[in-house]
Amino acid sequence: MSDPSFAPRPTLEAVAARAGVSRATASRVVNGSEGVRAPLVERVRQAVDELGYVPNQAARTLVTRRNDAIAVVVAEPETRFFTDPFFAQQVRGISKELTARDNQLVLLLTEGTADYERVGRYLAGGHVDGALIFSLHTDDSLPTLARRAGVPTVIGGRPGWTDSDSDHGTLYVDCDNRGGARDAVRHLLSIGRRTIAHIAGPLDQTASVDRLDGFRDVLPETDPALIAEGDFTPEGGASAMAELLRRRPDLDAVFAASDVMASGALRVLRTSGRRVPEDVAVVGFDDMVSVAEWTDPPLTTIRQDIEEMGRLMARLLLRAVAPSAGPQSVPALSSIVTPTQLVVRASA
Amino acid sequence: MSDPSFAPRPTLEAVAARAGVSRATASRVVNGSEGVRAPLVERVRQAVDELGYVPNQAARTLVTRRNDAIAVVVAEPETRFFTDPFFAQQVRGISKELTARDNQLVLLLTEGTADYERVGRYLAGGHVDGALIFSLHTDDSLPTLARRAGVPTVIGGRPGWTDSDSDHGTLYVDCDNRGGARDAVRHLLSIGRRTIAHIAGPLDQTASVDRLDGFRDVLPETDPALIAEGDFTPEGGASAMAELLRRRPDLDAVFAASDVMASGALRVLRTSGRRVPEDVAVVGFDDMVSVAEWTDPPLTTIRQDIEEMGRLMARLLLRAVAPSAGPQSVPALSSIVTPTQLVVRASA
Repeated sequence: MSDPSFAPRPTLEAVAARAGVSRATASRVVNGSEGVRAPLVERVRQAVDELGYVPNQAARTLVTRRNDAIAVVVAEPETRFFTDPFFAQQVRGISKELTARDNQLVLLLTEGTADYERVGRYLAGGHVDGALIFSLHTDDSLPTLARRAGVPTVIGGRPGWTDSDSDHGTLYVDCDNRGGARDAVRHLLSIGRRTIAHIAGPLDQTASVDRLDGFRDVLPETDPALIAEGDFTPEGGASAMAELLRRRPDLDAVFAASDVMASGALRVLRTSGRRVPEDVAVVGFDDMVSVAEWTDPPLTTIRQDIEEMGRLMARLLLRAVAPSAGPQSVPALSSIVTPTQLVVRASA
Repeated sequence: MSDPSFAPRPTLEAVAARAGVSRATASRVVNGSEGVRAPLVERVRQAVDELGYVPNQAARTLVTRRNDAIAVVVAEPETRFFTDPFFAQQVRGISKELTARDNQLVLLLTEGTADYERVGRYLAGGHVDGALIFSLHTDDSLPTLARRAGVPTVIGGRPGWTDSDSDHGTLYVDCDNRGGARDAVRHLLSIGRRTIAHIAGPLDQTASVDRLDGFRDVLPETDPALIAEGDFTPEGGASAMAELLRRRPDLDAVFAASDVMASGALRVLRTSGRRVPEDVAVVGFDDMVSVAEWTDPPLTTIRQDIEEMGRLMARLLLRAVAPSAGPQSVPALSSIVTPTQLVVRASA
């Protein structure tokens, strides 16, 4: 085991030698070019079979410019990627769609922004035909890197930049965050709640800003003390809830910008002796599998179809990569905003 | 938004035109070849800067044959990958090590064995310098595909094949599964247990077979009714425990081949009215973060350093990719078996 030898990949030279033809002829046959006599084509093909020759894709890519591979880049530390079920669900949708179209999903993990340059190099390197980017923070440079790399790109979530030049042509898939938030607050009003708090997501992410805007659309006069910022983790939801209870112990409802944060809020409400929904009604956002249904009590929430959004991202990108051959199920090369839906369970 | 235009990548032709040189001269400068006069080199470099030209990596790879990218392939459906914390921990170790050496982690997801051919094409395609494969099932064809692709490979977990030819030169990283299992059973004997059951992992995986062998090393005469097969999920551990209680209600201990299965077993023991550890002592395997310490009662288990094993896999592979330049912290190009350790908590 001290000197492992990896089976060397058979070369084109070996194929040519076995077929008794020149390297140029072997190359033309392997790359599907015209102008080689049929008997020679047959001899080269036989040599390819016998040697188990696999054309070097790097060389082939120079000709076809297609890899049948799509990168997924997550602009979050890899720890967050594995602990937040949102990513798993969206990647599931992407994976199903790409697999159905025989494209390889290439997930590029990063530890932080220091790694973006390397990711940009890989994207520019001719290894993938396009990129799906989860760029959740408004100051994120990944979409720009991908554009510079010259690969078609679809962003998961509405990009935050307002610079009209850099926004030009950016494709994204998002849900109706603002409309969903309005539905959440209107539901709380409809069940008689009057002192409604909001646990926002991190406000450098457009989804958080849009949900807060939806909250304010319905309650424009809200006391700022009724709004606290979380970070889309259970711990962040818990500490925001504790803070809100300190500031406004009279609150009778809370709309959390994610189910995961709502689960943390429920824990704090329980330990502080508040009954849900009798004393405080709680609404989440996402309808996250294995979160919303499993909280105690089960969570009333705003559903977005996360897996379907992953599928739509993949379809849109494949269409951008090959406009004529792409899936016709995506009607046009434009960004997509999917609807949300109120799901009423026990917590509100 | 209906006609997005992706910024075209500047071509080598554009660089040559701007510098007022031939394409061949521009190519020689970009690829670092000798024999171009200094003033021309300077003009080409200036044109590269002005246009923001990035050399096509596919072309460059033909010259350098290095991508500074390592593939991680998981021979499990992507759902399993995201729900089993084992993978997340091992990928964390790999990611840290590759990032520290400025290599890009390229995670290739699959939905099933039908996708392996596509993965093999990607590996053969010159997009990565090596592959780390989590091949957990003895009949898995991925390691063979990787070898045919001609890329250096390190396997996570001892490969199961016994064919001496195909085993030649295979590098892997695993923990001492058999020794760890012996420690688990000896601990149960040392606290006075005499009717010890075993919940095995799926027996088409070498880790499961090795742990069962360790159990049998210490208890060679065990009643076969005291051994049940699970599938490394909480549900699998629960149904195996229920089956064992039906077959041998007199059992006073159980060694589960993973913490995740042990958590399922604990649930069944509780609902069947057995106290842990008073009536039934339980030992797991892994010392999985966020599992072993959080069960009720906290789990006595056999610790393997999963993240460190990921780091070792990455180091070993980088050394195989570039024997002279690879990390010297891996002493030799040979497979690595890491020690395990008994961690005593409340369940046994």
